[in-house]
Amino acid sequence: MAYSVYPPRPPPCGAGWLITGRVVVYVRASDRPGLLQAVSRGVTRAGGNIVLSLAYAREGRAHILLLVDVPSPPEGVEEAIRLEAGEVEVEARLQGEAGDLFARFLEGNPGLASSLEPYLEAADFVDILVRLPEDKARVVARSLSPRTLAWVMELADKQTLDLIVSSLEVSRLLEALKELDPDEAVDVLQKLDERARRRLLLLLPPEYRRQAGFLLEYPPDTAGGIMTLSVPVLRVRDTVGRALHLARSPDYDVKDTVVVVDEDGRLVGLAEISDLLSHPPSTQLGEVARKPRITVGPLEDQETVARLMLRYYLRRLPVVDSDYRFLGLVTIEDVAYVLAEEAAEDIAKLAGSEVPIERYVPARVAELVRARLPWLLVIYLIESITANVLKSYEHVLSRVAVLAAFIPLIMGTGGNVGSQAVGLIIRALALGEVSERSRDDALLILRKELATSLAIASVFSLVGLGFALAVSGSLKVGLAVALTLFIIIHLADLAGALLPLAARRLGIDPASVSTPLITTVVDVSVAFIYMTIATILLL
Amino acid sequence: MAYSVYPPRPPPCGAGWLITGRVVVYVRASDRPGLLQAVSRGVTRAGGNIVLSLAYAREGRAHILLLVDVPSPPEGVEEAIRLEAGEVEVEARLQGEAGDLFARFLEGNPGLASSLEPYLEAADFVDILVRLPEDKARVVARSLSPRTLAWVMELADKQTLDLIVSSLEVSRLLEALKELDPDEAVDVLQKLDERARRRLLLLLPPEYRRQAGFLLEYPPDTAGGIMTLSVPVLRVRDTVGRALHLARSPDYDVKDTVVVVDEDGRLVGLAEISDLLSHPPSTQLGEVARKPRITVGPLEDQETVARLMLRYYLRRLPVVDSDYRFLGLVTIEDVAYVLAEEAAEDIAKLAGSEVPIERYVPARVAELVRARLPWLLVIYLIESITANVLKSYEHVLSRVAVLAAFIPLIMGTGGNVGSQAVGLIIRALALGEVSERSRDDALLILRKELATSLAIASVFSLVGLGFALAVSGSLKVGLAVALTLFIIIHLADLAGALLPLAARRLGIDPASVSTPLITTVVDVSVAFIYMTIATILLL
Repeated sequence: MAYSVYPPRPPPCGAGWLITGRVVVYVRASDRPGLLQAVSRGVTRAGGNIVLSLAYAREGRAHILLLVDVPSPPEGVEEAIRLEAGEVEVEARLQGEAGDLFARFLEGNPGLASSLEPYLEAADFVDILVRLPEDKARVVARSLSPRTLAWVMELADKQTLDLIVSSLEVSRLLEALKELDPDEAVDVLQKLDERARRRLLLLLPPEYRRQAGFLLEYPPDTAGGIMTLSVPVLRVRDTVGRALHLARSPDYDVKDTVVVVDEDGRLVGLAEISDLLSHPPSTQLGEVARKPRITVGPLEDQETVARLMLRYYLRRLPVVDSDYRFLGLVTIEDVAYVLAEEAAEDIAKLAGSEVPIERYVPARVAELVRARLPWLLVIYLIESITANVLKSYEHVLSRVAVLAAFIPLIMGTGGNVGSQAVGLIIRALALGEVSERSRDDALLILRKELATSLAIASVFSLVGLGFALAVSGSLKVGLAVALTLFIIIHLADLAGALLPLAARRLGIDPASVSTPLITTVVDVSVAFIYMTIATILLL
Repeated sequence: MAYSVYPPRPPPCGAGWLITGRVVVYVRASDRPGLLQAVSRGVTRAGGNIVLSLAYAREGRAHILLLVDVPSPPEGVEEAIRLEAGEVEVEARLQGEAGDLFARFLEGNPGLASSLEPYLEAADFVDILVRLPEDKARVVARSLSPRTLAWVMELADKQTLDLIVSSLEVSRLLEALKELDPDEAVDVLQKLDERARRRLLLLLPPEYRRQAGFLLEYPPDTAGGIMTLSVPVLRVRDTVGRALHLARSPDYDVKDTVVVVDEDGRLVGLAEISDLLSHPPSTQLGEVARKPRITVGPLEDQETVARLMLRYYLRRLPVVDSDYRFLGLVTIEDVAYVLAEEAAEDIAKLAGSEVPIERYVPARVAELVRARLPWLLVIYLIESITANVLKSYEHVLSRVAVLAAFIPLIMGTGGNVGSQAVGLIIRALALGEVSERSRDDALLILRKELATSLAIASVFSLVGLGFALAVSGSLKVGLAVALTLFIIIHLADLAGALLPLAARRLGIDPASVSTPLITTVVDVSVAFIYMTIATILLL
């Protein structure tokens, strides 16, 4: 797809300039003669080049969409158009961030999507489909060429994909799928329901079906699920010349490496094209191929694969079966996508525990509620222990009501200390600095955290004593607060540091359990400890 | 570095098998004749192949370290060795996770490090150096070859790097740096203090110094900071034959692409080696090179670069200056490392707010405390408002003490709802689903979250009413809890959803501010709202 770059130009502004692709401009105004010219003059004034201009009028309002190559930031284009065209609503955005502009423009006239196709990327169309009402989205989906449609299906979330599949004839879907490599087509098939998947799979050409069926055997988050088959595979006795001839084909995804196997399909090694170039064409590949440093089985977890490749600077990692037969190749490109996906998952888990929502924009409210409510209720249930504990100390609280004032502060501080520790240890685990299987590492963590929490607890006991004394005017209340802080900071820090290790040993993702669990444990403990100390000191 | 793969073998176990590299075994036992043989028999029993075996005795204890190629998991090797050798302490681990085993073995005899070098990767040595006491770490660092040392320096954290630099003569350091490409050497130099950096830079060969000095101009987290210069650059009139000849050189990091520029160094396009192969050697590169779809300036943020490359499936992204002169190439390999780094940072930020500790294991306790304490104190300061608010309602609390019992529960629920919303929106922002600059997206989020929080708040009001009624026996207390929950869930959810957008607009990383801020806002609001409602209902 076309996406031309900027022509050479003088630097638009000091040190902060950037060149990142095309700017999308959406102009709305009351329809009047000369409007389009005025808008175009604005673009020229901003130093821009109009690549495409689409417009329609509706109920007296003109809608104009421009694709512009321009060296200045989008704000400059908005400003220049306002100066030339006067009373207009104008929004400009870099193409990669303009999904909502496209969608709003197309909502009024979805038929214009096909005019946009040569200038947009599949990712842009996904953003558009996700934002359009169903009926308009169908019109847009139907207007796409097989090649664009294929990549849109590959990138789309399940809900958008279902909409596409239900909007198009099977023959159009097949045409699109055949534009993809089998491993990419499998990504699409895997998002579909069992029935739709089987139906499409049966209609694919036999060789294609064989490869896709083979890949479908592996779960999507394993080495087998992310590996590519689109790489030249040659025999030991094949020549360098034949390998270079094969590598020319534009059909392969992996263009810099050939795989060499023996007559039983067992992996002999990999050879880089740049290496092959320095050998005579008649050399046998067996002499050139290098044994890979590491191989993985097809069921290895994709996160482990990513960690191995990053740690050992591998660009291509062969996947082999238990007889060492070559199955496929995981590339560092695949790993970049795995990492982006896993990072988004981890962020979701940590920030709000695991909300199992694939994409936010197309998700319906009922789905959002279903995804969020159960976890909230579980935590509520555990946290309700604090209410029962505090209730049982009602006699203390009613005599010294000011005690209650410090409960949130103590709980909050304990929770923060605990989640800091969780964060540090999850990060150290992720970087491979410590292992959950090493007793030594657990001891090292324990030693470090005991010393750290002693220092933090001491500071907070003093601060807490002074603060509680000032607010309550009671030394005993101050002492109760200080003592509770001292104990809970130690407890929270050690629990926070050791819980991720324990979770990993149990095969649970530490990111998804640690923070909520720590907070709840801290709250319940504070209720107990604080009220017990207060009872002893004050009654 | 050698890292041979497993020979073909029968599948070790059902579906869960994996092949991921070498197993490290560390055996300790009281020294006795025949011990080494017994251990070797154990390895053979597990179906393993001993690649290297090192041993020393100390105070009557034998320490044996084995590197083993074996198709079964490490636990199987431990078991087999125990069966053959009887009373021994044995730990086995995959090589990538055995840093602590290596370190403990080498602590008793650091001189053995050089025997390990042919079998370990640079990443393994970093793990070892980080875990050893300073004096032993120096011995190990001095024993490494320039090539390994170079990659250890590239991978090491600042503290470990400082230890290496202070342990070795300048000539050894230079020898190591010259093993790296200029862009990699710059990564090392950038970790050093100004003085050490200048001294080393001056001693490097002129051409090397020129390239490194040029790269040092760009901050490490920009396109210029992560781009590579190690790619063949040719002119428009150069031939395909010349390009293929140049690409043979093992010196280039990028082996599948050549860059084509005009006589002023302006970017004309990129050409893939596999494409070049299908043209006659005499073709001029100007006819073959393809204009890239996107280019970036050298100061573009590395996260933006990563997002662009993933979104548009780019494997190589050229960096150009404002005159469109070619500066360097960002590869998808670079992006994988950027993503791994950013993910680790985000996790640290979200789980425990930003604890600015690069590596956990080598960090001293004083550093950990310094890194953690200020943030804890700031949050404490803000959170202390709750204590002041609650104190001002002391008269209410002393008359109806049971009110206090529900405060943590309400605050906890509000905080959880808020951080769920934060998580969802940060994820949607990260995936480019919504943009912080779009008013439409903000409205879409607002609509969705109003509906979602209405549903969640309704459920929790009912649950809260029932629970508080049961615990306190007072309908009025139940109503106060239910009403507060209803209000705070709306407030927390909307604040949680909109705060990441606001942070992004202000140019702040949403991951580092949102969760603590939401929790604190929720806690203070709950104190106000709950006590106000209680005063109205109960007094």
